[in-house]
Amino acid sequence: MYNAESIEQLVDEFSSLPGIGRKSAHRLAMHILKLPKQEVLNIAEALVNVKEKIKYCAVCWNFTEESPCKICSNAQRNHSIICVVEDPNDVIAIEKTHEYKGMYHVLGDALSPLDGIGPEDLKIKELLQRMDGSFQEIILAMNSSIEGEATTIYLSKLLKPLGVKVTRLARGIPIGSDLEFTDQATLVRALEARVEV
Amino acid sequence: MYNAESIEQLVDEFSSLPGIGRKSAHRLAMHILKLPKQEVLNIAEALVNVKEKIKYCAVCWNFTEESPCKICSNAQRNHSIICVVEDPNDVIAIEKTHEYKGMYHVLGDALSPLDGIGPEDLKIKELLQRMDGSFQEIILAMNSSIEGEATTIYLSKLLKPLGVKVTRLARGIPIGSDLEFTDQATLVRALEARVEV
Repeated sequence: MYNAESIEQLVDEFSSLPGIGRKSAHRLAMHILKLPKQEVLNIAEALVNVKEKIKYCAVCWNFTEESPCKICSNAQRNHSIICVVEDPNDVIAIEKTHEYKGMYHVLGDALSPLDGIGPEDLKIKELLQRMDGSFQEIILAMNSSIEGEATTIYLSKLLKPLGVKVTRLARGIPIGSDLEFTDQATLVRALEARVEV
Repeated sequence: MYNAESIEQLVDEFSSLPGIGRKSAHRLAMHILKLPKQEVLNIAEALVNVKEKIKYCAVCWNFTEESPCKICSNAQRNHSIICVVEDPNDVIAIEKTHEYKGMYHVLGDALSPLDGIGPEDLKIKELLQRMDGSFQEIILAMNSSIEGEATTIYLSKLLKPLGVKVTRLARGIPIGSDLEFTDQATLVRALEARVEV
């Protein structure tokens, strides 16, 4: 302990965050010491605020300040289509495209038996409760990982018997990439799903 | 704005910190959302604490919770030798060696006319005020940069007339490094300062 106690404590707190090692934590603490007091209070307030204000939307399970969230309560959006994603970040990624104007459902994670994540750990029960016949299409937008794939298969088996159209995101060559450097699994998918021009 | 407002605000605060870009800030905010509330309160408290408790030691100008600091008020340390450094971090680096048991003086920065940092911006006046004849040796431990070098020369010209022994850190080959990859300036210094074995 070469630092004053309160500096040491701040360094400890910073280095407990993901991607911040001991050295970066120390650099951040030194930066904080040099900041005007009001700015440090702002950071502290933003931290407390986010924990106090943010909750899960009771409909789609995305992060929100008011429940139901702005997307679920937006009458201008298409309430007959629903996009199922793993994570709140996926909602942001899709919203950024400005292409999709339907509803969402955030599972919270993907099925991963090895990590002990089963169907009861995801918001699947809550998804099925929303299936009151008002949806015409369900888009399964899982990550392109083994866990995402397993979740897609699991959900499609559950949802298809309900008589609703179940779709998934297209797999293929990402825009801007070279065929030469595209992995074989992606190339196989792209060949299988080839379309007439 | 695809996030709830309070998340967006936290992302803004995080990305204002050095070395944290927009993506890392977002990852950190998501981590904060998943933390137990008490842990987030701890981080916020550590931030506020550090600003409220930490001040400069009125003797050596290092960061401290009580003034004079633990080093200045430690009777077991050698009060007849003083090590002048640029930054509080340099005190920590030297303390970690367990080699030096004297006093310190933190200048706050190094002379850098191009950045508008002159002698009056450093704690040089305060250093001269400490020169009451009680010190037998002053070690100038500036960084090995152009600014550090300028500061060393400036201080030695000020201090030598006071009749006190002024020393500086040895320059040479760092331990564990290859001669092949050592820069020429360092090699020249190491040759000049060669010692008999």
